[in-house]
Amino acid sequence: MGVVLSFEDSEERRASIEPLLKVTAAGMAEVNRIAVEKTGSDVKLIPEVARYLIDSGGKRLRPMLTIAAAQACDAPADAAVKLATAVEFMHTATLFHDDVVDESNTRRGKQTARLVWGNQESVLVGDFLLGQAFKMMVEVGSLEALDVLSTAACTIAEGEVLQLGTAKNTDTTEDEYLDVIRGKTAALFSAAAEVGPILAGSDRSVRAAFRSYGANLGIAFQLIDDALDYGGTSAQLGKNVGDDFREGKVTLPIVLAYRRGTADDRAFWQRSLIEGSIEEGDLERAISLLDRTKAIADTIERARHYGAMATDALAWLPESASKSALLEAVRFSIERAH
Amino acid sequence: MGVVLSFEDSEERRASIEPLLKVTAAGMAEVNRIAVEKTGSDVKLIPEVARYLIDSGGKRLRPMLTIAAAQACDAPADAAVKLATAVEFMHTATLFHDDVVDESNTRRGKQTARLVWGNQESVLVGDFLLGQAFKMMVEVGSLEALDVLSTAACTIAEGEVLQLGTAKNTDTTEDEYLDVIRGKTAALFSAAAEVGPILAGSDRSVRAAFRSYGANLGIAFQLIDDALDYGGTSAQLGKNVGDDFREGKVTLPIVLAYRRGTADDRAFWQRSLIEGSIEEGDLERAISLLDRTKAIADTIERARHYGAMATDALAWLPESASKSALLEAVRFSIERAH
Repeated sequence: MGVVLSFEDSEERRASIEPLLKVTAAGMAEVNRIAVEKTGSDVKLIPEVARYLIDSGGKRLRPMLTIAAAQACDAPADAAVKLATAVEFMHTATLFHDDVVDESNTRRGKQTARLVWGNQESVLVGDFLLGQAFKMMVEVGSLEALDVLSTAACTIAEGEVLQLGTAKNTDTTEDEYLDVIRGKTAALFSAAAEVGPILAGSDRSVRAAFRSYGANLGIAFQLIDDALDYGGTSAQLGKNVGDDFREGKVTLPIVLAYRRGTADDRAFWQRSLIEGSIEEGDLERAISLLDRTKAIADTIERARHYGAMATDALAWLPESASKSALLEAVRFSIERAH
Repeated sequence: MGVVLSFEDSEERRASIEPLLKVTAAGMAEVNRIAVEKTGSDVKLIPEVARYLIDSGGKRLRPMLTIAAAQACDAPADAAVKLATAVEFMHTATLFHDDVVDESNTRRGKQTARLVWGNQESVLVGDFLLGQAFKMMVEVGSLEALDVLSTAACTIAEGEVLQLGTAKNTDTTEDEYLDVIRGKTAALFSAAAEVGPILAGSDRSVRAAFRSYGANLGIAFQLIDDALDYGGTSAQLGKNVGDDFREGKVTLPIVLAYRRGTADDRAFWQRSLIEGSIEEGDLERAISLLDRTKAIADTIERARHYGAMATDALAWLPESASKSALLEAVRFSIERAH
């Protein structure tokens, strides 16, 4: 009985990203060093534009996954650091391209690069980073890692193209939306985690465990981001709340609220989110509809399901500080929403 | 407050399959009549073998989905009945083939057809039923319905082939197991539900809603079947409990218990389930390990997630007795486990 209680205690302790930051600190210092080195170019505009986004304070969760997964499997640290940098470059490249495709004006609280330097520059610097990412992978020399990461690059692009079709479409089903985020988010999380065991020469089942961990964490992470864009369960209007709403993005909270709502609700979503005719008080009304239909609470509940899958994927692997940090990162990703 | 309470009351009322049986009664009577007609053949063995399984008391959930979905969309009843029969024939064909592939000796409490008449006969009668299914689809004449059902036939076969690789492999991840049941179970549920709106000429979004409903109900249904094979949450040793265990099937309860268990547990699963060296008391031990690792409870929890997706897929469609029956069937499928 005492054991059960202490187990539940630890379940209820609030999760933190600190353990992951701690176990990957040395590796991430190297990633940052290499990132500066690899954005160097005689074409002066390239380092300027590239570092504008790289230095703008992203969470760098993806390269941390690569480093922690590699450590959990005893992979060579230098190769892991290079692939982690490649993963972060791939992610940064997609951000440059997304901002152009979505015509976004701000990212991470700053003007987007496309506004500062232009769309063409943003597309091309993204391509440069993708090229550098592949060069680093080739330096590492693992054909299996190259295969996994280049497949992810294709899947990400497919997910983005798919999203062009769902972005302005309230008919989108939950399954279709999941296909989009499997592509645009989960694919890189999955590849980031899988290249660790690949470098270690781990067997198929360990690779599959990390692949599954990464993919499901990626889905959970994206769903919580979607919920947070409407303020999470606290629904406080913070400075970033409502970006998806204003950009007309059909995310899971919208899919659920639209399907569960009344005809009036659906007319509201159609006018505001889809047609972009947003009036004073519309964001507040959107949040109130999301609340009434339990769409935010259930988006978090869905995220919890994928989090549980991620956790179970790693359960049978040997205990280590890196494994614990990866598991706590799952809980942290979900608890962010509260 | 009163409204909230009455909503929760209805949520807690035990779900029943009766509404689905009732709304599909007339259509299913026709399905049964056509099934007898279409198993007729001058080759005397064919009706004998085919009806042995068709008349053996399956739940006929799949053709009921086709009929109820067609009714919910106002599709022509005669075409729906033919496609429903085709769906049931496709399902029956896979059962004949599965019993041969799995070398099963009993199904639905009776000797399998392969034991009564032989393996070759079972394979060929399955092929005959598949042929009849396609002939009925051609009679209906909808190329879109033919496309959906023939794609499902391929996907089912792919799922079965995939299962050959996972059946005896405790390394199977939850994602890999989901791929198997997406093929072997969800594909036909999904197609069965989607052909209703296709016959009605409903638009893309309605088709997508029923497709998603069927696929997610299929996953939930299969996961609950997996849990029931170990007695569900009640863990009473009924007459069918333990079939999957004795056949060495790695289902989701096993995936979870294996990953969450100790090294001793894993050695037990390896010896008993994988190597098939089953000793007195092993099934009881298996059930106790599944209980200790919460594998059955969490399999049901996972099923609940897919059930919620199925329910939300249909939420926005106009109310009707058929829609209500389809929604209650989701809850019924899950509550079976308790």
